[in-house]
Amino acid sequence: MAIELSNLMERSLSMLSSDHKSVVSMNLFVALLCACIVIGHLLEENRWMNESITALIIGLCTGIVILLTTNGTSSHVLMFSEDLFFIYLLPPIIFNAGFQVKKKQFFRNFMTIMLFGAVGTLISFVIISAGAVHFFKQMNIGTLKIGDYLAIGAIFAATDSVCTLQVLNQDETPLLYSLVFGEGVVNDATSVVLFNAIQSFDLSHINLSIALKFVGSFFYLFIASTMLGVIVSLYALPFPSVCFRLYRHSTDREVALMILMAYLSYMLAELFYLSGILTVFFCGIVMSHYTWHNVTESSRVTTKHAFATLSFVAEIFIFLYVGMDALDIEKWRVVRDSPGKSVGVSAILLGLVLLGRAAFVFPLSFLSNLTKKSSHEKIGLKQQLTIWWAGLMRGAVSMALAYKQFTSSGHTKLHGNAIMITSTITVVLFSTVVFGLMTQPLVRILLPSSKNLSRMLSDESSTPKSFIVPLLGNGQGSEADLKTPNVTRPTSLRMLFATPSHTVHHYWRKFDDAFMRPVFGGRGFVPVVPGSPLEQSVHQWQQE
Amino acid sequence: MAIELSNLMERSLSMLSSDHKSVVSMNLFVALLCACIVIGHLLEENRWMNESITALIIGLCTGIVILLTTNGTSSHVLMFSEDLFFIYLLPPIIFNAGFQVKKKQFFRNFMTIMLFGAVGTLISFVIISAGAVHFFKQMNIGTLKIGDYLAIGAIFAATDSVCTLQVLNQDETPLLYSLVFGEGVVNDATSVVLFNAIQSFDLSHINLSIALKFVGSFFYLFIASTMLGVIVSLYALPFPSVCFRLYRHSTDREVALMILMAYLSYMLAELFYLSGILTVFFCGIVMSHYTWHNVTESSRVTTKHAFATLSFVAEIFIFLYVGMDALDIEKWRVVRDSPGKSVGVSAILLGLVLLGRAAFVFPLSFLSNLTKKSSHEKIGLKQQLTIWWAGLMRGAVSMALAYKQFTSSGHTKLHGNAIMITSTITVVLFSTVVFGLMTQPLVRILLPSSKNLSRMLSDESSTPKSFIVPLLGNGQGSEADLKTPNVTRPTSLRMLFATPSHTVHHYWRKFDDAFMRPVFGGRGFVPVVPGSPLEQSVHQWQQE
Repeated sequence: MAIELSNLMERSLSMLSSDHKSVVSMNLFVALLCACIVIGHLLEENRWMNESITALIIGLCTGIVILLTTNGTSSHVLMFSEDLFFIYLLPPIIFNAGFQVKKKQFFRNFMTIMLFGAVGTLISFVIISAGAVHFFKQMNIGTLKIGDYLAIGAIFAATDSVCTLQVLNQDETPLLYSLVFGEGVVNDATSVVLFNAIQSFDLSHINLSIALKFVGSFFYLFIASTMLGVIVSLYALPFPSVCFRLYRHSTDREVALMILMAYLSYMLAELFYLSGILTVFFCGIVMSHYTWHNVTESSRVTTKHAFATLSFVAEIFIFLYVGMDALDIEKWRVVRDSPGKSVGVSAILLGLVLLGRAAFVFPLSFLSNLTKKSSHEKIGLKQQLTIWWAGLMRGAVSMALAYKQFTSSGHTKLHGNAIMITSTITVVLFSTVVFGLMTQPLVRILLPSSKNLSRMLSDESSTPKSFIVPLLGNGQGSEADLKTPNVTRPTSLRMLFATPSHTVHHYWRKFDDAFMRPVFGGRGFVPVVPGSPLEQSVHQWQQE
Repeated sequence: MAIELSNLMERSLSMLSSDHKSVVSMNLFVALLCACIVIGHLLEENRWMNESITALIIGLCTGIVILLTTNGTSSHVLMFSEDLFFIYLLPPIIFNAGFQVKKKQFFRNFMTIMLFGAVGTLISFVIISAGAVHFFKQMNIGTLKIGDYLAIGAIFAATDSVCTLQVLNQDETPLLYSLVFGEGVVNDATSVVLFNAIQSFDLSHINLSIALKFVGSFFYLFIASTMLGVIVSLYALPFPSVCFRLYRHSTDREVALMILMAYLSYMLAELFYLSGILTVFFCGIVMSHYTWHNVTESSRVTTKHAFATLSFVAEIFIFLYVGMDALDIEKWRVVRDSPGKSVGVSAILLGLVLLGRAAFVFPLSFLSNLTKKSSHEKIGLKQQLTIWWAGLMRGAVSMALAYKQFTSSGHTKLHGNAIMITSTITVVLFSTVVFGLMTQPLVRILLPSSKNLSRMLSDESSTPKSFIVPLLGNGQGSEADLKTPNVTRPTSLRMLFATPSHTVHHYWRKFDDAFMRPVFGGRGFVPVVPGSPLEQSVHQWQQE
């Protein structure tokens, strides 16, 4: 029997060896994902680390092990593909961000968030591009065109605020949290829109007309993408609300439809050459505001956690992927003969990132403070420093954009392109690991009062905190609200009723109450009634 | 502005046209998926139709539209790839089948299910292979080797009982439902194991030694795959039960870990050249028996519905896919000059399918009845007819196996291979649509008492019924149980306590209570306590 089996095995091996390498890769990758989740969970007490850094380090270690076992010939299990990233990994993360965002805080701070996310990113983009032109032209690092310099600006203007959000406490510093969170999303979208606009223009000879077209197309992309997201998710409504209300409710159909419609919105945006990120973000917001309230209770629980889980896995996937891909020996071979130049480029880029962010956080905070009357709504210097720090990390969006720009035409062998790819990897690794590890101590120094409360609260909170912990308010019956019943809920309500005027949020509320809710349903801004079935049932799960 | 935008659009179009075709395809496909869900829901009242047939017909119509608009040059939006099917679509369906199966009924009827699923499939395989050799050798349809004939047997032994399960009522005919459901799963696994065994053997010259090896490798694959699934899911336990119990619970981590571990079990089976289907099926059973009881309540709700939704979408995806791919003009071009032969082959195969299934259902039912003492446990003639009919449909597994066998070596242009592919498509379409539409009337004639009750119950039940409606018993607090509180729960409990002896289930219960539950946790066979928090909260969602 044993001989027969070994015989069979041998034959199978020789037959399937072509597919088998990919099966081994997938096994390794899935096992590493599991390991990241478990280790990330065990390290949660250690507030220096978080899931992103853990995944990145595990990915790097795996890359080293593979590099050693294959004698330096290969280090990547899966190739980083920007299609995989933009088509499958990014949509769930951004959709979940929109779905879990607390609309109340988001729309109350809408102007400030847009100021930071859109205008700020543009400022950062201009400074990094200008700096790159200034420094790199002297360094003789290969043939970079004007489009490449602008792309560098867009690539390094894309922040990754996951680490900071894991440290900031939404209950204690709601303003700060909503600003960092909202800015992060709008920044992602702005960078990608900017990048796409750059790629679709012939920028070899710039004049005023082309510059105007550029600005025009930027605003067109921004507004059209937002509108598409809102329209698709509102058209998705008739299905759950009308069909399922007339007939009987079906959880699996509802969940499937919500996921598919969300994905459809993203793909439609891609179809019309718009920004899928913005579209799917606003689709998430509208869905959680209207659609979510028209489905069965088990669909609500399922969608809430299913979207969060998808986003959580996609995030870990990305960091693991970036970590494993970073050591790909092919890319480093080209720059091996000029290591000093590569280090220099990375250092310059890091400096430009620091400068570019400082150049808009402090002036724009000053502008924003001018419009605020009450002192507790203003952004203090320490908070400004925190916001500045929060956006210094560069992550997967930068990586994906860099790959798209510098490997798309197939000329990675070019010296300049190879240096830009390795520099991007260096900046992403350095900023995520070094800046990321320093975030927690820095926040403790800048916002000292948060230390004890944040630790106490974090011990109680249950979901991984990347994008999942929603902003304050709204009362979707979320766990975070129910878990901290004695903290800040009255405050947020008081804040709402004390200062609803002079904000976008105020007008939005009026419009929503008058026109939208009668048509599309949704609970709107009515707080959760204590003792209602929804609240009770959510409570009961918690107490299990 | 308008001119600028059209300019931009044109430039983008020319730039992105290479990727854009796939974006259009994905949009079309996702939109069709949404349409299938909504139309399937609207047609639910019409009990002749179901989601599978709807998806198949929508797919066919789309194929025709594309064929007409492209002037007959192309009819498929996405190519059917058996890799996509076996790596991404099949695992969630089979895992969900194991996860939602009511273990009590499954293990009580374990011997009968294995008899039908394994021995029955083997009998069916032998008859179809022998018939194929007998008829096709006379018909001169190209060069088919002995391995091809055996593969045909395995391909057409794979049943697709989804349609029947949508018609049968689990509360009224628990024995019949559990037999058809259980047989369907074991049959899928057996066919794939058989097919893989055939592919890995050199069958050009058969002798006794090779036949023995073949049988040996079959049993090895069967047992090893089952063990792997059990082991992986038990090793997955320490994470949720120990880690998450020691620290705090985290829904998203738990859900992510359960999904990843399930997928890991499938990939590990593929890594070791075992049957991923069997592995992931038993992984699902063990996870729902132990792991599920160690996680938070919101994780339970989420996993239950998330797995069901994944499986539901994957099923619709497959049928849509098969429908759209069926009209691919390339395949039909080869057989166009001999249409009569193609029809003849399809008819012979359909006849062999009918015969092969009859050849094991009636004898094995007779055998099974010999071991039963009480008359209500025996399988009556009308029930035997229903079981026979239930397995006549051929579906995606047959398609995928046929593609693997007859297109893998790249010689699709061979006359024999092309005829086999088109015949498989014909058999799948004919059996699913024609037999599928006839199932409901037939079941009403054979089991007339079920008519009213089944309609009444189906109006109340909420989940789509493909693989999702679980077998009877066990009481995971599933919706189906809670929705029909006045029907059959007492009966199933009475049945359990009246006849637990002389079954595999009895010994399993003893073993489980004595060894497994103390180590791995899980609620075991304790019925749901009315008024417990779990039951209450589930009830409350229903009443919303």
